[in-house]
Amino acid sequence: MEAIDVIAAKRDGGELTREQIDWVVDAYTRGAVAEEQMAALCMAVVWRGMTRAETGAWTRAMLDSGERLDFSGLGRPTTDKHSTGGVGDKITLALTPTVAACGAAVPQLSGRGLGHTGGTLDKLESIPGWHAGLTPEGMRRRLGETGAVVCAAGPGLAPADRKLYALRDVTATVESIPLIAASIMSKKLAEGTGSLVLDVKVGSGAFMKDVASARELAETMVAIGTDHGVRTRALLTAMDAPLGRRVGNALEVAEAVEVLAGGGPGDVVELTVELAREMLQAAGLHDARDPAEALRDGSAMDSWRRMIAAQGGDPDAPTPVAAEQRDVLAPATGTLTRLDAYGVGVAAWRLGAGRARKEDPVSAGAGVELHAAPGEEVRAGRPLFTLHTDGPDRFGRAAEALADAFTIDGPPDRFPLILDRVG
Amino acid sequence: MEAIDVIAAKRDGGELTREQIDWVVDAYTRGAVAEEQMAALCMAVVWRGMTRAETGAWTRAMLDSGERLDFSGLGRPTTDKHSTGGVGDKITLALTPTVAACGAAVPQLSGRGLGHTGGTLDKLESIPGWHAGLTPEGMRRRLGETGAVVCAAGPGLAPADRKLYALRDVTATVESIPLIAASIMSKKLAEGTGSLVLDVKVGSGAFMKDVASARELAETMVAIGTDHGVRTRALLTAMDAPLGRRVGNALEVAEAVEVLAGGGPGDVVELTVELAREMLQAAGLHDARDPAEALRDGSAMDSWRRMIAAQGGDPDAPTPVAAEQRDVLAPATGTLTRLDAYGVGVAAWRLGAGRARKEDPVSAGAGVELHAAPGEEVRAGRPLFTLHTDGPDRFGRAAEALADAFTIDGPPDRFPLILDRVG
Repeated sequence: MEAIDVIAAKRDGGELTREQIDWVVDAYTRGAVAEEQMAALCMAVVWRGMTRAETGAWTRAMLDSGERLDFSGLGRPTTDKHSTGGVGDKITLALTPTVAACGAAVPQLSGRGLGHTGGTLDKLESIPGWHAGLTPEGMRRRLGETGAVVCAAGPGLAPADRKLYALRDVTATVESIPLIAASIMSKKLAEGTGSLVLDVKVGSGAFMKDVASARELAETMVAIGTDHGVRTRALLTAMDAPLGRRVGNALEVAEAVEVLAGGGPGDVVELTVELAREMLQAAGLHDARDPAEALRDGSAMDSWRRMIAAQGGDPDAPTPVAAEQRDVLAPATGTLTRLDAYGVGVAAWRLGAGRARKEDPVSAGAGVELHAAPGEEVRAGRPLFTLHTDGPDRFGRAAEALADAFTIDGPPDRFPLILDRVG
Repeated sequence: MEAIDVIAAKRDGGELTREQIDWVVDAYTRGAVAEEQMAALCMAVVWRGMTRAETGAWTRAMLDSGERLDFSGLGRPTTDKHSTGGVGDKITLALTPTVAACGAAVPQLSGRGLGHTGGTLDKLESIPGWHAGLTPEGMRRRLGETGAVVCAAGPGLAPADRKLYALRDVTATVESIPLIAASIMSKKLAEGTGSLVLDVKVGSGAFMKDVASARELAETMVAIGTDHGVRTRALLTAMDAPLGRRVGNALEVAEAVEVLAGGGPGDVVELTVELAREMLQAAGLHDARDPAEALRDGSAMDSWRRMIAAQGGDPDAPTPVAAEQRDVLAPATGTLTRLDAYGVGVAAWRLGAGRARKEDPVSAGAGVELHAAPGEEVRAGRPLFTLHTDGPDRFGRAAEALADAFTIDGPPDRFPLILDRVG
């Protein structure tokens, strides 16, 4: 087989065969197909798309490039959640121990943040002592003991995806729903979960800006999971405004702990409970305890403490605080009708909570506290945001990102929290 | 500037600015934009196309990557012809000395063949002693002496095009009219001709299979030439059937010499004369001698002999003959209504006249003689083709390529020789 024939077939709008996809993904991973050839193929896929059969074959080929974990025989079903990423999205932190407290095991492989969205591992690493690296055996042992593991994916899982994502990142070929779906699903299928709930974010702070493309991504991923024997469903959820009241690594851990203590912002609690219910249903645990009860009675908090301690973290350690704080005041009195997730995410990133390149460090304490959510009243001269940073020279550019990120007094115009259910 | 932003702009259907194009072509030539980034950009151009302004800027950027020859001050105007390539297209051989005999100077930079189409340099190299390599000073001296030079482009001309073409060749991104036009025109503008006639071939043996795409390519190239101050026009000409009666390097030289001697096949003579008239007009030589007269009175032949001798060739040396000949007989009696240029080109290639990879050698004597042209009568059992090769094991696969390449007795169905004039 020749790479140029595969590229030309997709360029001309054809459907690639399973054999072509298996060959090109494997040959690329081995270095027998050149980076420039895969780049041209990816741009042709951005242009022409892929059918369900092609996307499934592409996912399978990436999955087959590495090992696939197996957590059967734990004595309880496995389930996991994946979010496509947003601003203030700390849901995994409280969700994972809550679902474990209700009887399922959650083998969650997570990532670090890039750009304006945060990463779950960055957030957990703000807890003193906590470490993200586990072997498959380490994952299995902790899953048996606590039912909840959040850790980094090892290099043996879907290496084709790792190599391909780095290529897409520099060739403007990330923006393809079939390629995004295959990338996410190859990693999630490799982690060996028996069921999966996808949280597909929609809005300015999300990768998918509109409901139609988010639905297409959700349907594509649900189809792939189903075709690979994993019970998969998806929620489309709002990312026009940030989730909760805090954006930044340690700030988000603190908010998640509030939720685990039975409090916390309403949207974070609601989404945590809804996703937990979906996960328990997907896992077949129809008689499980209700997650809301696990949050109320302290069992989710106990589960969190065990999960953190099992990976070296001290759940009682004080969370890191940034060196400097500064308030941004509301310029008018009225209703906060718009709070743009992207602007807030960029501000937190500029304060040091995020990274521009994979190798950059992040600040544990940096981020943005929000003193009002959309729909709430604000008063001129009172704090609207509090900015946290270790580098006081960062305040200016963060404030610039926030300047156009809100509207006071316009007509309310935002998404309901949960927009749709797929699968 | 970042490559990813340029790629994303074209991916999203935008028009690139002159600054973006200058930067990306220059940075790619210097190695600062990676091969995979340029491959993704080229596929986005295949998808989205380029405007006249973008195509002109792209051409200019490739032209500016190297030197531009200057043949002003020769005492006569310069003009050149470029063919997009076909089967049996030996027009340059007789055309160049004919135009020189009529008063213009022709500084023709030519190439070698690849695949089923031949290359002018391969044909001329079948003449004992003739060499293609000349310095710019050597070109200028011979242009002053003989008015006619056909030679290889040096490495200093449009190096960006050289690097980019090699990339497009392995990434299925050759098939883009703006990129094809920019590639051809950057080389032709670099050679410093004052006027240019483009012979855009159309049909099975050409790169452009239909009149609409050939016209688009012609118009694009005429626009680029005009925008760069070179008087440029184009003819669309037939390549559904081979030109003339011989296909192969030395075979085509022999046919060109027949034309120069006042004979030769009607289509080759007609196209040579038409293109020569166009070149003389484009050069502003409205009172020049008629090229048909130069062919009749021997002055074109004298010009040819000077041109060949000036580059070391012996115009009186016997042309090389292949080691083996074999006839393919007509299977029926009737009118030859179709003779497919592509099939004949592939047969000649398989006999050794062409190459599959740039580094392959070619056979001087190999090729196909045609004993009938479309519209002529053939008789069952009489030779339809004579195959020439140095490798008798090659006859079988060449005959296979010819088996479906002709029709006897169906209704005549072919293009007129000259389909249109542009510019």
